Amino acid sequence: MMLQRPSADSSGPGFTPLVVVELASDTKEEAIAWLLSRIRDQQHNGGAELLVEQLGPGVEGQEKENPNMFVVGASWQRLLSGAEDVGLFKEFSDGSMRGFTCANKHNFKDFKGDGDDFLSMAECQYIIKHELDTLRAKDETHVPGYTQVKLYPGKSIIRRLQSKGILIQFFPLHEKEELKRLSFSWYKKMKLSFQPLDDIRHYYGEGQALYFGFLEYFTIALVPMALIGVPYYLFDWEDYDKYVVFAVFNLIWCTVILELWKRCSASLAYSWGTLSRKKAFEEPRPGFHGVLGFNPVTGREEPLYPNAKRQLRIYLVSLPFVLLCLYLSLYVMMIYFQMEGWALSVYDEEPTFWTGILLFIPSIIYAVVIEIMNLIYRYAAEFLTEWENHRLESSYQNHLVLKVLVFNFFNCFASLFYIAFVMQDMVLLRQVSLATLLITSQILNQFMEAFLPYWLQRRRNKKMIHKVRKRRTLEDKELPLAEQVRLEAEMSTYLGTFDDYLELFLLFGYVSLFSCVYPLAAVLVVLNNVTEVYSDAFKMCHVFKRPFSDPAANIGVWQLAFEAMSVIAVVTNFALIGMSPQVKAYFPESETQLILWTVAIEHGLLAFKFILTFLIPDVPKHIQIKLAHLEFESLEALKKKVK
Amino acid sequence: MMLQRPSADSSGPGFTPLVVVELASDTKEEAIAWLLSRIRDQQHNGGAELLVEQLGPGVEGQEKENPNMFVVGASWQRLLSGAEDVGLFKEFSDGSMRGFTCANKHNFKDFKGDGDDFLSMAECQYIIKHELDTLRAKDETHVPGYTQVKLYPGKSIIRRLQSKGILIQFFPLHEKEELKRLSFSWYKKMKLSFQPLDDIRHYYGEGQALYFGFLEYFTIALVPMALIGVPYYLFDWEDYDKYVVFAVFNLIWCTVILELWKRCSASLAYSWGTLSRKKAFEEPRPGFHGVLGFNPVTGREEPLYPNAKRQLRIYLVSLPFVLLCLYLSLYVMMIYFQMEGWALSVYDEEPTFWTGILLFIPSIIYAVVIEIMNLIYRYAAEFLTEWENHRLESSYQNHLVLKVLVFNFFNCFASLFYIAFVMQDMVLLRQVSLATLLITSQILNQFMEAFLPYWLQRRRNKKMIHKVRKRRTLEDKELPLAEQVRLEAEMSTYLGTFDDYLELFLLFGYVSLFSCVYPLAAVLVVLNNVTEVYSDAFKMCHVFKRPFSDPAANIGVWQLAFEAMSVIAVVTNFALIGMSPQVKAYFPESETQLILWTVAIEHGLLAFKFILTFLIPDVPKHIQIKLAHLEFESLEALKKKVK
Repeated sequence: MMLQRPSADSSGPGFTPLVVVELASDTKEEAIAWLLSRIRDQQHNGGAELLVEQLGPGVEGQEKENPNMFVVGASWQRLLSGAEDVGLFKEFSDGSMRGFTCANKHNFKDFKGDGDDFLSMAECQYIIKHELDTLRAKDETHVPGYTQVKLYPGKSIIRRLQSKGILIQFFPLHEKEELKRLSFSWYKKMKLSFQPLDDIRHYYGEGQALYFGFLEYFTIALVPMALIGVPYYLFDWEDYDKYVVFAVFNLIWCTVILELWKRCSASLAYSWGTLSRKKAFEEPRPGFHGVLGFNPVTGREEPLYPNAKRQLRIYLVSLPFVLLCLYLSLYVMMIYFQMEGWALSVYDEEPTFWTGILLFIPSIIYAVVIEIMNLIYRYAAEFLTEWENHRLESSYQNHLVLKVLVFNFFNCFASLFYIAFVMQDMVLLRQVSLATLLITSQILNQFMEAFLPYWLQRRRNKKMIHKVRKRRTLEDKELPLAEQVRLEAEMSTYLGTFDDYLELFLLFGYVSLFSCVYPLAAVLVVLNNVTEVYSDAFKMCHVFKRPFSDPAANIGVWQLAFEAMSVIAVVTNFALIGMSPQVKAYFPESETQLILWTVAIEHGLLAFKFILTFLIPDVPKHIQIKLAHLEFESLEALKKKVK
Repeated sequence: MMLQRPSADSSGPGFTPLVVVELASDTKEEAIAWLLSRIRDQQHNGGAELLVEQLGPGVEGQEKENPNMFVVGASWQRLLSGAEDVGLFKEFSDGSMRGFTCANKHNFKDFKGDGDDFLSMAECQYIIKHELDTLRAKDETHVPGYTQVKLYPGKSIIRRLQSKGILIQFFPLHEKEELKRLSFSWYKKMKLSFQPLDDIRHYYGEGQALYFGFLEYFTIALVPMALIGVPYYLFDWEDYDKYVVFAVFNLIWCTVILELWKRCSASLAYSWGTLSRKKAFEEPRPGFHGVLGFNPVTGREEPLYPNAKRQLRIYLVSLPFVLLCLYLSLYVMMIYFQMEGWALSVYDEEPTFWTGILLFIPSIIYAVVIEIMNLIYRYAAEFLTEWENHRLESSYQNHLVLKVLVFNFFNCFASLFYIAFVMQDMVLLRQVSLATLLITSQILNQFMEAFLPYWLQRRRNKKMIHKVRKRRTLEDKELPLAEQVRLEAEMSTYLGTFDDYLELFLLFGYVSLFSCVYPLAAVLVVLNNVTEVYSDAFKMCHVFKRPFSDPAANIGVWQLAFEAMSVIAVVTNFALIGMSPQVKAYFPESETQLILWTVAIEHGLLAFKFILTFLIPDVPKHIQIKLAHLEFESLEALKKKVK
């Protein structure tokens, strides 16, 4: 980490600021004093032993400005011991990845001198987040000044303040220089190249880097599909029955790429040291509430919420709600088909250019409505999952993903399935619905995701620079720290990779389910992904606050979601094959025979798919050997210690 | 462990004999002396630090008798430190299961005084096996006296002697008193009760106990099936189309019982301390050969065999061989159908009692032929898998199980599938084939498995007692140690639970695949299992050498095999449902509609089955909490050590 001290700005603190903590502007003095003392207190007194300072007033010093902004940092020694606490893996002198310990810090490859550029800034920020999160109440019964904000021994102070609204946010600071360099290598140079995944990981952490890695992998994996798709589209446009070969290709493609991704992901995670990193015990999420009791695992006092009650909420409220939403979505779909029918009848009566365009209108409206419904449902799902009161963030995420996935899948693909299998109208499916839905949703997504937030951010940015300009003439373009912090505090908060993965999931669905009917889908998705890389990179660098890095070892629940989609794709593709006139020609007299054969082969292929998944090892051989070697060494070391 | 010193027999060693090592009778003196000194040598000199003594001559002292029999034991201190080496889990004073360490031995629940009855005899024998197995060559280049038996530093001495035929066998001794008590509580008392799983585990180890636990679980799980089956059989005998309800029940049954078994198995393994026990690094199996090189994981010198070569052998030789065998089995099946047709034509010409019996003859012959083919194939599969030269015992086992399972499944069920789905002749399936196949194979199995070995053993036993009687009058019936050892050395070697699980697997197949057609299957299997418990228990106690205990945490690859069978069962049952006249009546005009609906519902159910598998946690909640608690404690301990 090569961080310059923020220029010649006298209002800055006496240490490198890493993380910003923003308290509510009306926070009572005694609470602030107490919090700061707990953060500064030494570790053997139960403090976090971090450095913290209040931020000086902004240039304007307006009344609107929140005075309770604090920057947090730490000494190098503290950060190194924190790295050991969080179980950071670093490259050892023999090239393997090992858990960092202060005791043999000099055996790690990049540890030089005092080790003051051993940790990246993202790692330092992650360590500070961890130390703040695990700063626990001692014998306080409540937060000083707030008798209603109860505490009990062992409760995470930060989480309590957060859930009570006293702590508004805490976020890591951007590094202007690093960011400039990263954004240049990432998206500013115009020639097509691989993404700088290691740099992304260095700046944003492993979770982000894995997302961009997956996006890149998925795009490259789509290229053969796209290449095969173009001639199909160009030469067989009116020949709807040549898609058998394409469907078979599709089938194999979606199984193989997901298996290979697991190996890619394991390689990346190994080289970043997250593959074999042990998960720390998860604390209850900030919003979790319940009756105080003793956690049977840790023996600590913490709120407990009976699992049976949660199950009741899930099965008696959430599940019926999801089903109701699916029904609504079905209803909207039916309205769409009526509109479609009406547009077709208008076109049939008077086939002009304008009525020809009218044919596409229902699909476009439907696509917009789908996006709006997805958005509203998203909020409802978040509310419901919050209300289910999950103890762990991971369990909350899983339930949220499940709810959102089911609805989005249904909302986006139900109409296509209906057209394909109930109406069996391949022309409508191909020309009108698929193309329009896909293109419209892509355009909407790009707009909602990047341009809108960018435009909002730009306005805010300009206002701030304008304000600063008013007060003093800026020789260099750099803002003073106080302004920089306030500017970043007002940036939107990046809400994680959820929406990005969701979008990829739906695109994967379009390609794997229906690209044999509409071969251009892969081409469109490739184009979308290329712009997606740029817009995602751009929004990460310029629109959002820097997120805390997230030491992920894989893409988590999304791997499962993509695999489920690939199973559905096998079934769908086989149904499409069974319906093709080409195949039907083989069984001229008996439709029963045709279906039985299709089903039999489909079962065989599904079985083959599962066997393939089982046979391809999830972790490449050379990494397996390295992991086994480390484990063997630790076993041997244990044996020696015993004797 | 409460072992009396073997009576007043002066030829016994000065310690409790645990394990017998038998060397070839023509082993050179210097090799024996070297081996004994290595076994006795102290640990810091690289020895095993065990006690070993040559067995005195038998009563007759015939020339035929092998003089090179040794009994091995150890001091209590050595056994306790060995228990730590093998990572034994024992009950701690707070009721949790923890890895035993000598340092805090007094905190373990059953540790009293010196701890001389802390370990069971089976555990002691397992420890001795481990210590012998890991007795490694130092700087010897070959076994003294045998220049062709090469050694290199780190090579397991015992395994090399074993693979070169110098070491004939090593096996643990039975405990007469224990065995008497166990066999009484297990199968001698006539009232029906649960098996004494803890006692079985105490005497035979976890692998055996899990097999008997599974056998018991499976039998109990079958009881509802059997109860429903009997009225079906009694009242609907001629009404072949009432099986839809039964098929649906079947479907749910086989999914649920396998999921619940996982939980049962986890509970058992936790209470026996094998659930969270870490696996030690696997040594190459004795038969493994290759060019000397360095193992990339351990860094030790050991034979290496290129994986590519093994893959070639698997895909170019083993796979075609298996396919050929399947083809052969198909051919035999066709001959069976011809015989069946011939018998039917004879019966039709002249329907008497004798020609009525003739109807069953082809099925009986076919069942016998199937058993013989399975047996021959079993040997071929063992030979082939040996030849594939797998490095690890576990990988060898997996490949063997896969080969044997595929063939056995095909051999036993192909004819039934053919009758059900190609000939669609439910009467033949039910009355002739299923019943005859099932009953004949059960009778054959019981005979081959228990009565034949018992009869052989009895003859041997009598001869030995006769011999002893000739020499001296026996007041008490106990044999002197030397005779006892020689008697046990001649008992058959128990080859593991493979064949027992295989038999259960095929029975599970009969029940889950076809019991809706032949509801009595469950009843027959329950009866078979009850006798199986007795005959298995009997053969374990009286026919076989005591096996080394095997610290298994679950039933391993068999869980997977049973789950695969249950998926096949879902598909089969749905096909049977689709073919039933009852269901066909709902779709009088269109067969296509019928098939499409059946397939759609089947897909839905398969999906539901997978979701169910996913939702039911494999480990019961209270054990999850205990495991998490231990892990949390070790993490906290690590943190404290650091600070």
